Amino acid sequence: MTSTPTECRSRRLNVALGERSYPICIGPDQLGRAEPLRDWLPGNQALVVTNDTVADLYLDPVLTSLEGLHADALILPDGEAHKTVASCERIWDRLLQRRFERSCTVIALGGGVIGDLAGFAAAAYQRGVAFVQIPTTLLAQVDSSVGGKTGVNHPRGKNMIGAFHQPRGVIADTDVLATLPARELSAGLAEVIKYGLIRDPDFFVWLEDNLEALLARDTGALADTIERSCANKADVVAADEREQGVRATLNLGHTFGHAIETATGYSSWLHGEAVAAGMAMAAHLSADLGWLSEEEHHRVTALLRRAGLPLTPPQSMTPTQFLEIMAVDKKAQQGRIRLVLQQGIGRAIVTDSVPAERLRATLNHFTGGA
Amino acid sequence: MTSTPTECRSRRLNVALGERSYPICIGPDQLGRAEPLRDWLPGNQALVVTNDTVADLYLDPVLTSLEGLHADALILPDGEAHKTVASCERIWDRLLQRRFERSCTVIALGGGVIGDLAGFAAAAYQRGVAFVQIPTTLLAQVDSSVGGKTGVNHPRGKNMIGAFHQPRGVIADTDVLATLPARELSAGLAEVIKYGLIRDPDFFVWLEDNLEALLARDTGALADTIERSCANKADVVAADEREQGVRATLNLGHTFGHAIETATGYSSWLHGEAVAAGMAMAAHLSADLGWLSEEEHHRVTALLRRAGLPLTPPQSMTPTQFLEIMAVDKKAQQGRIRLVLQQGIGRAIVTDSVPAERLRATLNHFTGGA
Repeated sequence: MTSTPTECRSRRLNVALGERSYPICIGPDQLGRAEPLRDWLPGNQALVVTNDTVADLYLDPVLTSLEGLHADALILPDGEAHKTVASCERIWDRLLQRRFERSCTVIALGGGVIGDLAGFAAAAYQRGVAFVQIPTTLLAQVDSSVGGKTGVNHPRGKNMIGAFHQPRGVIADTDVLATLPARELSAGLAEVIKYGLIRDPDFFVWLEDNLEALLARDTGALADTIERSCANKADVVAADEREQGVRATLNLGHTFGHAIETATGYSSWLHGEAVAAGMAMAAHLSADLGWLSEEEHHRVTALLRRAGLPLTPPQSMTPTQFLEIMAVDKKAQQGRIRLVLQQGIGRAIVTDSVPAERLRATLNHFTGGA
Repeated sequence: MTSTPTECRSRRLNVALGERSYPICIGPDQLGRAEPLRDWLPGNQALVVTNDTVADLYLDPVLTSLEGLHADALILPDGEAHKTVASCERIWDRLLQRRFERSCTVIALGGGVIGDLAGFAAAAYQRGVAFVQIPTTLLAQVDSSVGGKTGVNHPRGKNMIGAFHQPRGVIADTDVLATLPARELSAGLAEVIKYGLIRDPDFFVWLEDNLEALLARDTGALADTIERSCANKADVVAADEREQGVRATLNLGHTFGHAIETATGYSSWLHGEAVAAGMAMAAHLSADLGWLSEEEHHRVTALLRRAGLPLTPPQSMTPTQFLEIMAVDKKAQQGRIRLVLQQGIGRAIVTDSVPAERLRATLNHFTGGA
């Protein structure tokens, strides 16, 4: 992690993926600067894809930084409900309407929904054009902007249609977090806590010590958190870009969490909230299997609670509903549900051999059964 | 090219793409055999995607060869007009409805339209699942089943949405060509002739000598032709998988041809027919620029004519219409139209520096101008 003043005023982290390697620039005062953004564009055409909430706040400075190029913006409605093939088609229509060529760039300005959606649109347009991420939520800064997973939802499952498509670069401006609603800040912290849980026990302790500073939006603490989280994710992704092995541990809380999001129609729960409840469920099951001590289990739920995150799924959900949705999850294999569970704080394992009655017991515990 | 009796009764050609390498099995009596097809499936779920014309003829033997697995078939309407995102969504819906997992396989049974469409659906389903091609037209056997290009059309341009996604294997059964309409056989020969024109002058001469045998569907001549064509394409693709350079020469006749297909709504012209007219236009322009002798120009048009192919675009098209569609072609760069032209028979070059008035003169010649 070296600082390169001319390109990146703040910290610069490299995601090492061979010829697909790219930088993440982390720090204040990034939006509106021409560099490094313009260096990442292979041509002079750029489409900024954003949503109506973010556009009001940050579209102007981004378009200013692209002045003199053939730049256009497409503003989509805000929300996970719009992460669909239909929204992709709106992006493709605009790109073609403007006669954007193979050398064009799609710039995602927004949270994880915009990043996933615009990333897939870029992956498929003319079989793949350049893509830049400007994440505007903590969750997108620490999670979805690193790793190249793109995609859209299907009524039968989350992120079912997509591609692996690495960005040319990511700009994580800590200033944008000042306007982030408290609920979204908490949702981002869920993924942050996850890195501590799956592979970085020192970071978990650091979070226990610094959570109040993060909730108070201390700029330094936020930049430290983004950098440490991205470094953790980048390590995992570099080791396993296509999720053949260790990358699956990044899905801690996600199998339960995706079931919650699917059951609630991707609308009322934020992704990070669903992951938090999912991590609480995974911790419970891990403790039940004797893999997590009661004291560790307590530390997990305590930190999630302090971060303002939900610890239980919606009470309307049943164990059967969970099982049905989880069986069609991308992580399922031969109909067996694969779960990421914990063996202590800082160590995650992927398993498809949890006894069915233990899984059901956890689901009963969290839903009231039936 | 070695023969491996247990896996591939006939000829087996390897497309060398490192870890994405795959075999093409060429010869009679391939359909309905369990091997090598079943060896290529990573799991036990397979969806055969086909069209109503092909399903009547060949779906049963393919499903028989998958007996005992979780196999399903989706029959789409025949024709280029159905190579759309909407058809992809039908494939994704079916895969999800059947709870097909990441280890499933999509098998394309049909011509180029089915291959391109099912290939893109496979590339994007759960960010990429296994894919097998069983091409049932000569064109698909010699062209679209080799190289990993997948995609669908957009009203504003052909193949605008897609992915590079290599198959696990290709089965080119020469028996299926017995039922191929004469017009489709000719359309396939257009791509065959293209390999002679761009890089294999000996093959061009061989085609001049053996065209009647091919039109009479001589099995040996057809197998020779498929093997030589696939070998040519495989060489080019191995040298340049993502079309950064030499692969673009495979687009001889395609820039003009795509304009014809776009103008006619992808319905009345077969792809190979449009490419044939496009190659005749490219030969005319090459001769006009002094790159092709009049004698060579004549040999090109003579062979295309003997193959039963059209040598001119629809008379309803205007030069302006060509130029407008060609400007938004994937091969365009910075608004400059890139063309593949010939420098003699057996040598193609990619150029974006043809003087505008020479291009317009050729367009005028073929359309009557205006």
